[in-house]
Amino acid sequence: MMTAPIPTMPEDVISNVLAERYATAPMRAIWSGEGKVRLERELWIAVMKAQKDLGISIPDGVIESYERVKNQVNLESIMQRERVTRHDVKARIEEFCDLAGHEHIHKGMTSRDLTENVEQLQVFRALQVIRNKAVAALTKFAARASETRDIPFTARTHNVAAQVTTVGKRIAMFGEEMLGGLQQLENVIATYPARGLKGAVGTRLDQISLFGGDAAQARALDAKIVAHLGLPGSLDAVGQVYPRSLDFRVISALCDLASGPGDFARTLRLMAGHELASEGFAKGQVGSSAMPHKMNSRSCERINGLHVVLKGYLAMAAGLAGDQWNEGDVSCSVVRRVMLPDAFLAMDGLLETLLTVLNQMEVFEAVVAQELQRYLPFLLTTTVLMEAVKTGAGREEAHEAIKEHAVAVAKDLRTGKVSTNNLFDRLAADERLGLSTDQFDAVFEKGRANSGDAAAQVNHFAEKVATLAGKHPTAAAYEPGSIL
Amino acid sequence: MMTAPIPTMPEDVISNVLAERYATAPMRAIWSGEGKVRLERELWIAVMKAQKDLGISIPDGVIESYERVKNQVNLESIMQRERVTRHDVKARIEEFCDLAGHEHIHKGMTSRDLTENVEQLQVFRALQVIRNKAVAALTKFAARASETRDIPFTARTHNVAAQVTTVGKRIAMFGEEMLGGLQQLENVIATYPARGLKGAVGTRLDQISLFGGDAAQARALDAKIVAHLGLPGSLDAVGQVYPRSLDFRVISALCDLASGPGDFARTLRLMAGHELASEGFAKGQVGSSAMPHKMNSRSCERINGLHVVLKGYLAMAAGLAGDQWNEGDVSCSVVRRVMLPDAFLAMDGLLETLLTVLNQMEVFEAVVAQELQRYLPFLLTTTVLMEAVKTGAGREEAHEAIKEHAVAVAKDLRTGKVSTNNLFDRLAADERLGLSTDQFDAVFEKGRANSGDAAAQVNHFAEKVATLAGKHPTAAAYEPGSIL
Amino acid sequence: MMTAPIPTMPEDVISNVLAERYATAPMRAIWSGEGKVRLERELWIAVMKAQKDLGISIPDGVIESYERVKNQVNLESIMQRERVTRHDVKARIEEFCDLAGHEHIHKGMTSRDLTENVEQLQVFRALQVIRNKAVAALTKFAARASETRDIPFTARTHNVAAQVTTVGKRIAMFGEEMLGGLQQLENVIATYPARGLKGAVGTRLDQISLFGGDAAQARALDAKIVAHLGLPGSLDAVGQVYPRSLDFRVISALCDLASGPGDFARTLRLMAGHELASEGFAKGQVGSSAMPHKMNSRSCERINGLHVVLKGYLAMAAGLAGDQWNEGDVSCSVVRRVMLPDAFLAMDGLLETLLTVLNQMEVFEAVVAQELQRYLPFLLTTTVLMEAVKTGAGREEAHEAIKEHAVAVAKDLRTGKVSTNNLFDRLAADERLGLSTDQFDAVFEKGRANSGDAAAQVNHFAEKVATLAGKHPTAAAYEPGSIL
Amino acid sequence: MMTAPIPTMPEDVISNVLAERYATAPMRAIWSGEGKVRLERELWIAVMKAQKDLGISIPDGVIESYERVKNQVNLESIMQRERVTRHDVKARIEEFCDLAGHEHIHKGMTSRDLTENVEQLQVFRALQVIRNKAVAALTKFAARASETRDIPFTARTHNVAAQVTTVGKRIAMFGEEMLGGLQQLENVIATYPARGLKGAVGTRLDQISLFGGDAAQARALDAKIVAHLGLPGSLDAVGQVYPRSLDFRVISALCDLASGPGDFARTLRLMAGHELASEGFAKGQVGSSAMPHKMNSRSCERINGLHVVLKGYLAMAAGLAGDQWNEGDVSCSVVRRVMLPDAFLAMDGLLETLLTVLNQMEVFEAVVAQELQRYLPFLLTTTVLMEAVKTGAGREEAHEAIKEHAVAVAKDLRTGKVSTNNLFDRLAADERLGLSTDQFDAVFEKGRANSGDAAAQVNHFAEKVATLAGKHPTAAAYEPGSIL
Repeated sequence: MMTAPIPTMPEDVISNVLAERYATAPMRAIWSGEGKVRLERELWIAVMKAQKDLGISIPDGVIESYERVKNQVNLESIMQRERVTRHDVKARIEEFCDLAGHEHIHKGMTSRDLTENVEQLQVFRALQVIRNKAVAALTKFAARASETRDIPFTARTHNVAAQVTTVGKRIAMFGEEMLGGLQQLENVIATYPARGLKGAVGTRLDQISLFGGDAAQARALDAKIVAHLGLPGSLDAVGQVYPRSLDFRVISALCDLASGPGDFARTLRLMAGHELASEGFAKGQVGSSAMPHKMNSRSCERINGLHVVLKGYLAMAAGLAGDQWNEGDVSCSVVRRVMLPDAFLAMDGLLETLLTVLNQMEVFEAVVAQELQRYLPFLLTTTVLMEAVKTGAGREEAHEAIKEHAVAVAKDLRTGKVSTNNLFDRLAADERLGLSTDQFDAVFEKGRANSGDAAAQVNHFAEKVATLAGKHPTAAAYEPGSIL
Repeated sequence: MMTAPIPTMPEDVISNVLAERYATAPMRAIWSGEGKVRLERELWIAVMKAQKDLGISIPDGVIESYERVKNQVNLESIMQRERVTRHDVKARIEEFCDLAGHEHIHKGMTSRDLTENVEQLQVFRALQVIRNKAVAALTKFAARASETRDIPFTARTHNVAAQVTTVGKRIAMFGEEMLGGLQQLENVIATYPARGLKGAVGTRLDQISLFGGDAAQARALDAKIVAHLGLPGSLDAVGQVYPRSLDFRVISALCDLASGPGDFARTLRLMAGHELASEGFAKGQVGSSAMPHKMNSRSCERINGLHVVLKGYLAMAAGLAGDQWNEGDVSCSVVRRVMLPDAFLAMDGLLETLLTVLNQMEVFEAVVAQELQRYLPFLLTTTVLMEAVKTGAGREEAHEAIKEHAVAVAKDLRTGKVSTNNLFDRLAADERLGLSTDQFDAVFEKGRANSGDAAAQVNHFAEKVATLAGKHPTAAAYEPGSIL
Repeated sequence: MMTAPIPTMPEDVISNVLAERYATAPMRAIWSGEGKVRLERELWIAVMKAQKDLGISIPDGVIESYERVKNQVNLESIMQRERVTRHDVKARIEEFCDLAGHEHIHKGMTSRDLTENVEQLQVFRALQVIRNKAVAALTKFAARASETRDIPFTARTHNVAAQVTTVGKRIAMFGEEMLGGLQQLENVIATYPARGLKGAVGTRLDQISLFGGDAAQARALDAKIVAHLGLPGSLDAVGQVYPRSLDFRVISALCDLASGPGDFARTLRLMAGHELASEGFAKGQVGSSAMPHKMNSRSCERINGLHVVLKGYLAMAAGLAGDQWNEGDVSCSVVRRVMLPDAFLAMDGLLETLLTVLNQMEVFEAVVAQELQRYLPFLLTTTVLMEAVKTGAGREEAHEAIKEHAVAVAKDLRTGKVSTNNLFDRLAADERLGLSTDQFDAVFEKGRANSGDAAAQVNHFAEKVATLAGKHPTAAAYEPGSIL
Repeated sequence: MMTAPIPTMPEDVISNVLAERYATAPMRAIWSGEGKVRLERELWIAVMKAQKDLGISIPDGVIESYERVKNQVNLESIMQRERVTRHDVKARIEEFCDLAGHEHIHKGMTSRDLTENVEQLQVFRALQVIRNKAVAALTKFAARASETRDIPFTARTHNVAAQVTTVGKRIAMFGEEMLGGLQQLENVIATYPARGLKGAVGTRLDQISLFGGDAAQARALDAKIVAHLGLPGSLDAVGQVYPRSLDFRVISALCDLASGPGDFARTLRLMAGHELASEGFAKGQVGSSAMPHKMNSRSCERINGLHVVLKGYLAMAAGLAGDQWNEGDVSCSVVRRVMLPDAFLAMDGLLETLLTVLNQMEVFEAVVAQELQRYLPFLLTTTVLMEAVKTGAGREEAHEAIKEHAVAVAKDLRTGKVSTNNLFDRLAADERLGLSTDQFDAVFEKGRANSGDAAAQVNHFAEKVATLAGKHPTAAAYEPGSIL
């Protein structure tokens, strides 16, 4: 039986923008209203089965009645019930029982026995989606870094040329940061504890009563349900709610994991400004045919934006942590309704965008080379000094000569007197240094290629990612959908 | 012509939870996708009219064609266009032009000429909705404070009884805080500047070109549009985007305004824990008939929760402020799509909840009196000392006596030896003080009634609110809808 | 009499890094431990004088005794007292009274009557320091913008060339943002209310008792003290503490005011990366004589860093707002001890750094011109199209020709085939457009100079700043000290 | 040789309030200016030794000269050098070299090779201090919970009585939350990677050059130094700076760990408001002898305050994460100078305060019992219903009777008609239920003692803590110093 359409005014409808524009279907499915109702119903059915196993009397056929209707989800009908009862769980119990024609669910359970566990299940499944996409992103980071491992490149500190590195090393650097974030996320997943069926204030009183005072039975029930949820462990002493620092921990891990991508995106925006690289384009995108230089880093900007969004949800999570009163209440309710889905939807969108950028990005090697050409003489002055001294020049005099010319070239470049860096020409012409043009050319070529351990670091990063991908081969092979 | 249904899978649909559960229709209407499209179309039409007035050639009948279709909003069709173009504004231009059968909108305009101004209009209108509800809330604060102005009450510091105040004074205290917040919000409204039609990088180049180089015409156009928006002023030197500190300013003002309500809600939760007061109930709410003491402060908890939500959006806004690169980009885009509507929807819900609590709250005067009875002797020991000295007791000896008995009573209460505070009985029996039972009764009665300037402060607060309400009589009379 | 040295182990000493490295002496003087003790003593003396005026008996010579010792501040002695009493105010009362040889201060006062008002005075004075420095910064913004008002410059959106603006317009843009922030700060100053002498729970009970029950006298005392503080107004209904949203409001205003400077600093860092400008150097700074291109934007980076610091204090302030329990407690105490001084010290350092950058910054006009040379042909393609059509070319054919060449040039630039943008040469050689080299030169020169309303916007900004500076001439003339 | 006094004006001195008032000497020693200089000098010496081992020529006696002066730390002298050079590391190099009479330190190193590693060492050592104190706190949580394991107690949800638990279970609940936080902190410690000696942009270029191009030697040097630092691992591909998400990760772990204590402190403040418990007092504290009921929860309030402070530093850390430009710059510098020490100083103070509260807290069992007496009848109405039905009453009629009386009692309590909960008396007198007074007494006694699995949960928590303490016996036995 399909449910009637929702009778709201058109202007009423405000969609979740993160779900609509950025997140993917699997993540949306975890957090949708319907999805949650279905999960709840599965939990209720699992509890009934476990209770029946453990001796609670539930007539034959009852569980089947519930199973038959569990997918008939009518959110509007539930909302109408809630407007009367002002109690969301009661509304959903009534709806399910009316559909099934029985009243056997939720036995010995309180609202939070239902909602806490279902929400934890949502969080846990969403964490796994994110973990998998992070593996895919790291695989692509490693591929891009390996491809560009040996392209000499001007490393910048303070946004100014500093030394030679390689394009691949720069990419690996951000990948390595993300790898550290993933390590933390894995730990959060591995230690994520369920609240379990612990009753109104966490003492299991209601289930124990249901089992005629047999605490062991109640514990057994709890264990069966935690196993059903697939969570790695369970809290012992807990109140009505699981500690909200658990939500903080989860969202904090997302923010951490997003940091490498954030740094990468921001730096790619900088590189695009110098035309060293571009995040690339999808087919059909509105670029500017007449302004083909204008390859806007919209996706990278979005990655940075989504990180800011995540940090906002982190502030919400921080606002709840350490603010539990006694065994709990619902002052966290609206916050969690917003931040839990939205943080995961944002992170999902961030990773999809990242995967797309990693697929489509381009490096403009000629411009990369031009940039290095411009700055390399400045970067190699200490080498020149060493060579000059080796050849017989006085250190002080050579240093003075280099300084003079370097300052002059910099000035001439800024005032437009020269348009290319002719420092080595000027130095070759200065007798104080005693070095020939050939020697300068040699210094230049050697310096250009000397990016130290950059390539080895890229290799090492790629090896670590390969190990990871070996553990999660399906995840590693994931390809993003098309993004807006 | 009605638009086709959106062909999404059921599990895809994730609604905006703040819109769905907490905010009211007028606020939703400001932020809905359809509402925004309608506002954009109105802006385009206003620009065409102003351009035509100022001499730009637009054939007769064209504007009318747009007007005729402006309410045919099909979000899914627009979204499908955007999936192709990857450019949201272009998608909306095409949709509107296809509907009208012309291509005359958006002349000399860039995307941000449209979106910045429309979003500012949304913000500005939403600010006014909030201002009006704040006036209503203050009116109720004043009413509740005045009603309870003279009920003696145990003020607490460190959550422990400290001195006598009155119930009304406590309520007025939180109202006064909110009044300060409103004052700031009013200032934000009064100084909120539009970006205006300033073109791709803020120089008005495109409009000036459209007017054949006549900058004065372009300025006149801009002024007409700002007047159309109804905003109090306009920025001069601005880039592609208005400064994002403006968003920060707005959300910060919301957080400020929510603080008085937040303190009030938190304190009412504390009072409910002592059964001194309750936030009350609506009809039909699931309370606990068998547990009638359990009047849960769900609405107050929600107020505190929504404040946490607002602070999360503030963190997002802070993340954008001071992060503009050159003339701007879209790294703020996803953040603003989330935080602007959601902050206002949250604030709207917070104020609705507050208004409901202010309507329904109850003070249990008998319990208030019992509490004061219990603590008053402790609070009056300095008065007793003064009286004893006046009557002839030695200060040191009297002090020692009081201390002895006070410590003993406190201990006896905590160990259950006594169940009521019998300090005055014990002191009356102690010859060192030389005061009679009648004298103690007098001290007690006088002390009970002595709440200093509390009533006068309530009056003063109520007067300020009355002045405010006089300026906004419709707003002051606003009554909340029913809440979940 | 000088006080004894503080007997701590050397490794114990951790200075306030913001005070030590970034803030100026006048701001440090407001927040130092000694400065605060002195302010407190002045308040106590003012209260005694007012009480004596209003009839409270204080023997002759007593006030003078306090005045004589008020500058003998020994923080270690006070701290030792506090270690015994665990009560900071009591420790300071004892110290002052022991020095004076009397016990007449703090009559009818509670701790918070002292500390709240003194802290508000610190905040209020610090706000004025900041306001004055903001006026100075705006004056410099206007000067720099005016100097560079007419230098054609490549505006960027998405960090990529977009249209022509002027250097001055870009600078004015950030100044205009700061001007909006100052407007808010001025409002916070103008509406900042004192808590006043309101006693333990805000009812003025203790002062009323001191005046024998005469509330009018207590109000008069309060008014005298608020006048002494120089604050614009006073709260009526208040608890033990002033509402902490007031602190939030203040720090939020600082964050707002820092946003224009933050955007400016960030963009100057970007410009330095392109060698378009530099923040300049002070004498003696360690730059890189051999690497003279390496003019690191350390000060701009610091401005952005200090803004992040401020936002952290904002998070603290937000953590307190709406979390008052009853009439108050000290859960805010440690937070305010940290965030209030540190936010102002950070903001002071931020503005000093900004003023320095505004003094020392350099624009490299030749590089600015080169950049524009490179991008201008792309930016002018629509003008070329219009001219070609005017001359007789078919629109479609002309558009196609432009697109072809533009894409080719962009590709050639990125692959290194060409090193300068020769689009106009190629277009001049294409017969489809029918435009001569001279016509292209004319388009180029006209386009280069066409920055729309940029200069007028700079003028308008400068006028607004001149008006402001006229109101605060001393502030406007302020020059920063030397920074680290 | 002792250094000259710092010639600052008295009002200049602003101490770090967290260091001065809250943190302990061992934590201060990690973060003090002198301590850091000493660590740096040790690193330089370690590098020289390793370089010498690996074949770099350093004359005999040189290292010894540095060792001799390494403890002569004169911060003011260093600061004066920095005022000239505007470069902090250069200032410290010069100072150390001048003291030693050599120039052999810092060979092949850049500033960040020094500062990054030293700061990481500070962080790593500080993490261990915190871990150890957390173990001590958990040991005390377990002890307090075990002592009070069987005291029946009114659990509250929504701050209102909900069901029976035990005092020990409530304490264990917060301990269990903290245990989860510690687990995360341990993971951060176990995976904390050093940046190592990687040179200006992370390629190890300078060290490789120093070793004549031998990358293996440079890697060996790096490994030796990381081993010297005692860190568990090392980053491979890294820029000038280690990723700032590492700082975020650390501070986030502190916030997480503080959440259990925060919840505990907040709930103890609530309990103190009901006189159910007190955080206790230290000797000599200024309490109120005349107001002995006024046992203010100052320390618990401080714990909550320090958590807010930590969350502010988290906001700073979040502000840096994902904001790296290229290989890095100093926009993070001022932020890290503030947040790293201050977050650890705050956390140290928080744990000291927590340990003190856990030592001194008192539970007032008589009041606990009175509270339960008051609410238990309401909490047991479902039991009464079951008993009545078992005895023969009709379910509907019995439910109606219970509801009637419960509502009446609640009303009478609130209106002062009765002062104790006489629900069971009224129900015993109602023939519809058919239960005797004895039966009610039995229900009451059984219900009072029925806290479900509470005791077992306490035991389980205590066992987990015992295992932990077994691994860290010294840490577990730690006792806090005296706090302000």
